[in-house]
Amino acid sequence: MNKSQEFTLTPTDRIKSRPTHIKSDIDSRVGATATEFDKWLTRKLLGAIGFPNISIQLWNDETVKQHEETSVATVIVKSRAALLKLIIDPEYYFGELFSSGEIEVEGDLHACLEAIYRTIRSSHNYFFLNTLKKYRRRKNSPKHALLNIHQHYDISNMFYQAWLDNAAMQYTCAYFESPDMTLEQAQLAKMHHICRKLELKPGQTVVEAGCGWGGFARFMAQEYGVNVKAYNISHEQLSYANEQIRKSDVSDKVEYIEDDYRNITGKYDVFVSVGMLEHIGIEYYHQLGAVINSCLNEQGRGLIHTIGRNEPGLLNAWIESRIFPGACPPSLGQMMQIFEPYSFSILDIENLRLHYAKTLDHWLQRFESNQDEIQKMYDEAFIRAWYLYLTGSKAAFTSGTMQLFQVLFTRPHNNDLTWSRSHLYSR
Amino acid sequence: MNKSQEFTLTPTDRIKSRPTHIKSDIDSRVGATATEFDKWLTRKLLGAIGFPNISIQLWNDETVKQHEETSVATVIVKSRAALLKLIIDPEYYFGELFSSGEIEVEGDLHACLEAIYRTIRSSHNYFFLNTLKKYRRRKNSPKHALLNIHQHYDISNMFYQAWLDNAAMQYTCAYFESPDMTLEQAQLAKMHHICRKLELKPGQTVVEAGCGWGGFARFMAQEYGVNVKAYNISHEQLSYANEQIRKSDVSDKVEYIEDDYRNITGKYDVFVSVGMLEHIGIEYYHQLGAVINSCLNEQGRGLIHTIGRNEPGLLNAWIESRIFPGACPPSLGQMMQIFEPYSFSILDIENLRLHYAKTLDHWLQRFESNQDEIQKMYDEAFIRAWYLYLTGSKAAFTSGTMQLFQVLFTRPHNNDLTWSRSHLYSR
Repeated sequence: MNKSQEFTLTPTDRIKSRPTHIKSDIDSRVGATATEFDKWLTRKLLGAIGFPNISIQLWNDETVKQHEETSVATVIVKSRAALLKLIIDPEYYFGELFSSGEIEVEGDLHACLEAIYRTIRSSHNYFFLNTLKKYRRRKNSPKHALLNIHQHYDISNMFYQAWLDNAAMQYTCAYFESPDMTLEQAQLAKMHHICRKLELKPGQTVVEAGCGWGGFARFMAQEYGVNVKAYNISHEQLSYANEQIRKSDVSDKVEYIEDDYRNITGKYDVFVSVGMLEHIGIEYYHQLGAVINSCLNEQGRGLIHTIGRNEPGLLNAWIESRIFPGACPPSLGQMMQIFEPYSFSILDIENLRLHYAKTLDHWLQRFESNQDEIQKMYDEAFIRAWYLYLTGSKAAFTSGTMQLFQVLFTRPHNNDLTWSRSHLYSR
Repeated sequence: MNKSQEFTLTPTDRIKSRPTHIKSDIDSRVGATATEFDKWLTRKLLGAIGFPNISIQLWNDETVKQHEETSVATVIVKSRAALLKLIIDPEYYFGELFSSGEIEVEGDLHACLEAIYRTIRSSHNYFFLNTLKKYRRRKNSPKHALLNIHQHYDISNMFYQAWLDNAAMQYTCAYFESPDMTLEQAQLAKMHHICRKLELKPGQTVVEAGCGWGGFARFMAQEYGVNVKAYNISHEQLSYANEQIRKSDVSDKVEYIEDDYRNITGKYDVFVSVGMLEHIGIEYYHQLGAVINSCLNEQGRGLIHTIGRNEPGLLNAWIESRIFPGACPPSLGQMMQIFEPYSFSILDIENLRLHYAKTLDHWLQRFESNQDEIQKMYDEAFIRAWYLYLTGSKAAFTSGTMQLFQVLFTRPHNNDLTWSRSHLYSR
């Protein structure tokens, strides 16, 4: 049994919190004294996020901490204005202030964020804040979805190429059959794992909802001989997908359609969606269920691969606002709103949480090694924001705040089932 | 890949609907004419259960059917009184009248019940009836639970010995790694499968909620070297369990406790419950979650093995009344009420629906071959009721009405996870 202990986190983690090349220019401390009231506010802030084992260093170099032992990292707050913003909404402004360079993290950024994720969960204050903020979240109607997806996925294919895998441009959790796999091997393994769960057979018809840069649709056609209709509303991604498929030997087997999942038509043997559910909003799950119900053949099966949570809750407010507008990872209970109204039978659910932490680790390494290239495209604040988002996501998975679910399902009457899942592992 | 097609149902099914030895004595048809109104009522009855492809033969030998093709079976209704009872509440009175011999089934009973299960789901009338009947269901408070469990499990150990496996008296779904396994092999395979999912290690402490005749607790101690505290409120079952453990070589490792799961105390590495959840009632799931939360160590993991459903609903009213008082198999969405309030992380869910159909098939064969022995203990009505219950349960699984879920979970922070599930299949 390969155990996840091999997925070592700190201190052997290669990525440190503040690589010099993304260090902020803002280094002019205010110089003013930090008052007793400032320090009292800082302690309140630590309490509001559940007293993680971090220190907060104020603009006058004074440090506030709660724990006796050495802190895993120090958050440097460069001005009173920054402190007040953190007090008002730590979840949102941590991201804003880190991006602009008004706060820095000394020490291991991943360890810092993981410590916060671990304690923030049990903080009552934090949840109160979350409830208030629910009302400013982005909508997911077809019109809003288009804007939301455009904001994240249409920024530039070249940017994503700088740090995703070269095998199939997969911007979703890979599957590390063994922890020493390369990112390319693990992304191929992920696609095989899903295809084996779906038991794809040559000639079958597949509909894919949310196909990214089209790599998985192309893979299914090439490796399993199926015919794929792949939907996506990101224009940039589909340009890339169409370019790739024209150069491939399966251009007659794959059709990319620039349209919303709600407009899927036709009947298929298989429904598959990898990394789209996070974007569609819980209130649309019933509608997604209806789409699957109307497009799946009588013996059909489907798989949804998604980021999820152990309990209902909202995505980090800053990530939702700046990175993934409209996104909301569901709990399994919430996901059942897709399946239960149509009596779909859940066959298999697998949680690949630590696989996503490892995937993010690979992405971060590439993001760092390709800094020069990325800096030609984007400014400092953008790079700091993305560095924080990728590191924070890794911390969300290592701390158990976020999960990665693969949910396999079929029609209730379908008795064409394997006796065990051993075919997923016999090679 | 072993496919479930090998699990052939009709017509090669060895067990036929009405073995002569359990044929009812009531064979004196009323002799009266069946009126047009009787036949109209019969058609209404067929409609209320969604027009399955069965025939209904009335007391004057006249037959009512809806489909053109040959019916899979014929239900013989021996009197107008029986017909009226079926009209009032088909779900409940089918069982009552079959047990008393006032209705018979000509042809394959399993095929008959499967056909009904397949159509009844979509019948609006049926669901209306179900809603009304919800209020007469049995309660599951500690006092009621004791009565409910007594009614089913304390009838006689010898009765269950007559048709359960000899390996460990498992009255729960077996695991057929390959479909040609014997019942004994498959019950041992089930226990290994659960222990491997739980990754039991020698010296660990395990608490089992609802331990039946104690076979699994004994198995875990013998095969995996763990220390088990096993709870059950059935006095008869624990007498048997204690007798067996005294004769074993692990009497120092297993303690059986005659108490309600709500009274579990102590801290354990592992929580396991096989076939108890069906009995505790959805309204007590939050309480069960609290019990698990208070008794599980920080790195602990747990597994719940239970009959379930694709969508929320009630157990067949007759089975709930006569066989399993207070029982209610949950949907996965309902099950999440156990886990989500405590942020337990779901690692793996497997649906073994057809394994339970096959298990029931084995039980039915043994039930039949040991008729002579059983007839010495119980009267005709009891035997007919149990024959219907076992066959009906098999039909519920083959028709996809019932599911069998194994849900593996752990604490949210636990990163001591395997990279893949391959260890479940590598032997």
